[in-house]
Amino acid sequence: MPPTQTIKQVIATVFKPNGLITLTTDFGTHDPFVGVMKGVILSRFTSAKIVDLTHEIPAYLPATAGFWLSRSWPYFSAGTVHLAVVDPGVGTDRGMVLLQAAQHVFIAPDNGLLDAVARSVVEPEWWRIELDSLQGIVAAKPSNTFHGRDIFAPLVAEIAAGRLLPEAVGTKILEPDTNRSSAAAMIAGEYSGHIVAIDHFGNLITNLDGVELHHFLRPEIHFHEQVFVLQDTYGAAAPGAIVAVVNSFGVIELAQAQGNAQRHFGANCGERVRVCEANGSKD
Amino acid sequence: MPPTQTIKQVIATVFKPNGLITLTTDFGTHDPFVGVMKGVILSRFTSAKIVDLTHEIPAYLPATAGFWLSRSWPYFSAGTVHLAVVDPGVGTDRGMVLLQAAQHVFIAPDNGLLDAVARSVVEPEWWRIELDSLQGIVAAKPSNTFHGRDIFAPLVAEIAAGRLLPEAVGTKILEPDTNRSSAAAMIAGEYSGHIVAIDHFGNLITNLDGVELHHFLRPEIHFHEQVFVLQDTYGAAAPGAIVAVVNSFGVIELAQAQGNAQRHFGANCGERVRVCEANGSKD
Amino acid sequence: MPPTQTIKQVIATVFKPNGLITLTTDFGTHDPFVGVMKGVILSRFTSAKIVDLTHEIPAYLPATAGFWLSRSWPYFSAGTVHLAVVDPGVGTDRGMVLLQAAQHVFIAPDNGLLDAVARSVVEPEWWRIELDSLQGIVAAKPSNTFHGRDIFAPLVAEIAAGRLLPEAVGTKILEPDTNRSSAAAMIAGEYSGHIVAIDHFGNLITNLDGVELHHFLRPEIHFHEQVFVLQDTYGAAAPGAIVAVVNSFGVIELAQAQGNAQRHFGANCGERVRVCEANGSKD
Repeated sequence: MPPTQTIKQVIATVFKPNGLITLTTDFGTHDPFVGVMKGVILSRFTSAKIVDLTHEIPAYLPATAGFWLSRSWPYFSAGTVHLAVVDPGVGTDRGMVLLQAAQHVFIAPDNGLLDAVARSVVEPEWWRIELDSLQGIVAAKPSNTFHGRDIFAPLVAEIAAGRLLPEAVGTKILEPDTNRSSAAAMIAGEYSGHIVAIDHFGNLITNLDGVELHHFLRPEIHFHEQVFVLQDTYGAAAPGAIVAVVNSFGVIELAQAQGNAQRHFGANCGERVRVCEANGSKD
Repeated sequence: MPPTQTIKQVIATVFKPNGLITLTTDFGTHDPFVGVMKGVILSRFTSAKIVDLTHEIPAYLPATAGFWLSRSWPYFSAGTVHLAVVDPGVGTDRGMVLLQAAQHVFIAPDNGLLDAVARSVVEPEWWRIELDSLQGIVAAKPSNTFHGRDIFAPLVAEIAAGRLLPEAVGTKILEPDTNRSSAAAMIAGEYSGHIVAIDHFGNLITNLDGVELHHFLRPEIHFHEQVFVLQDTYGAAAPGAIVAVVNSFGVIELAQAQGNAQRHFGANCGERVRVCEANGSKD
Repeated sequence: MPPTQTIKQVIATVFKPNGLITLTTDFGTHDPFVGVMKGVILSRFTSAKIVDLTHEIPAYLPATAGFWLSRSWPYFSAGTVHLAVVDPGVGTDRGMVLLQAAQHVFIAPDNGLLDAVARSVVEPEWWRIELDSLQGIVAAKPSNTFHGRDIFAPLVAEIAAGRLLPEAVGTKILEPDTNRSSAAAMIAGEYSGHIVAIDHFGNLITNLDGVELHHFLRPEIHFHEQVFVLQDTYGAAAPGAIVAVVNSFGVIELAQAQGNAQRHFGANCGERVRVCEANGSKD
């Protein structure tokens, strides 16, 4: 007989869907792609509630989708199914994965998109999605280019409806590779990360987590060979000044007061940002 | 007594609303126009479920709305009401029409918008919408410029709620004109159509249906005095190469690998695209 | 014993939520900010119905949000909660307010956003929102920059769910300042207002209410030292002509036929527009 502790834990982690589905894609809203996915979902699960996180992820940047998802899912209740489709490899033999953690389910192409989500939870469990396990659910002849509609939408509908268990989508992955979207890291006294998203105000959002700042007495932000002192708030910055803060999603962000930091720096996703001790900086 | 066959068919085609409404417009999302339409719908039909197909149809291109609708409705379940408002003639005496087919209802200005939808179904039935039939439903004094809010929104709400039968909106049209948005056509061994939509990736989407390609042994796509071989997938195209494929909506599309075909060609909606037999081409 | 009349009125003005929430912000849809607010709302109130009015209000223009809200709320049914967050002062000690009128509830930062709404209703009642009254509802440590998620979203969820009475959010304001977003005014025979919104067609929308035009025999619209005759409809204007009409929201608007009035004039929100008597004009 297993110890009570273990039984409790197993019971606690059974996924009970709440009918809510979030969508994160690079499909934009210029065309009916997202609407058609919703049609497929609602055809199978009439009472689904669907929330758009964003459909404006830059194409070819699955890591940006994963970053936002890793910082957004805690605001949804347990039982939510999160679908993210940023999929430059669609039509190739790239796989698809399901991640279950904290009573949430995440589904995405197997391209590193969910790495940041996995790093944000305790005890993530991964499954490789296999079409053989989904007969009668996914389209019989899925298109080469719109797996969001033909595979992912019916799949999340069935899971959110409680008719398909997350663990029934395919084979459990015992040793997932979760380092394709690189994490921030503490190396030799520096905390090194990169710009992972740029919001519509032009703010440069990094994957540097504010909770790591306790390692520093006087943290300095290094970017583009300039140094910025971390501020408590956007507060009283003069117009045009660059402000470094821990933003409302808990990560370090560079903003320009009444301006646009992306244009100011000519910055792009992926560029390195470092936190150093003010006195210990090597620059 | 009528034959059983006929009774079954009549019963099968009675429209039973499922509470779902889709919206396709050129209103954009910059202003609250769409939100206000939803307010009107929900005021009359509290439990309506509303899905945005897109609100970014180019103004003055009803045919683009009709194309997307003709390719999107099959992903919604029977009983859905589809409202499309791309209406350069609003405020003039242009009419309004209702199309019923395949257990779906489509409502739009009478400007050719629904032609492509009618061509996508078997036995479409048309009604001319008459304000005299809708007293107590539409606004008493509709504005000249926002029929979406004042006429169409309350109308679709009542139909989706099951309180107004589609056939009660006005007079049945026995000989509808469905050729204002021109269809692709097979003429003298060529299959000739045009660009009907350009998606947010810049892909050029034609109204040339992939199912007609069985007429050709080796189909070639002619556009802008160039010839493109039809590919099976976007597959291994070199960056910058132009790829012609049957896309996920079943029509021929010209794309530029890792690029933007619209910018590459300087192309616009309406430009002619032809499919010819490789050896039989007259070019 | 109070007169029957008074009792009826009091009963009539008790707010009974209908589960509907509208959102008006400057957050855009490029990032998951709005989606996360919806997650917070749905976490507390599972059956909330949320309608986006627009998320494209220009940052720093609360008055534009207020204008649209003042012209949009009548299209929603009694019992709707309207949240508007255009909040250049977020993180400072600016207050937050709740306005109750006509069986609707409006919530916003206390920056003049709701002035136009208050002017659109009879007997508005105002409350100052106080965090001390909302313990257990708002985030324990709200962020400095995202009160939409941490304060406003849980607050509207609780009100829309019927668990928090509007009058329980804080202290009643007896003499509200509702003149921070300036109203149009009749002065010395002129009706003077300003551009309050520019829609995605480039139409210049003023706060000049069409119902005031009865003061004029032959109203002329003065803008940028030019004079325009008020038209009944956009009707037969030649392409490029400037047309002044009372638009579908009941206010005077300047449009360019088949063009873009904003680009034509190089116009901005806040610029003055006047209505004068044709013969009595001082210009």
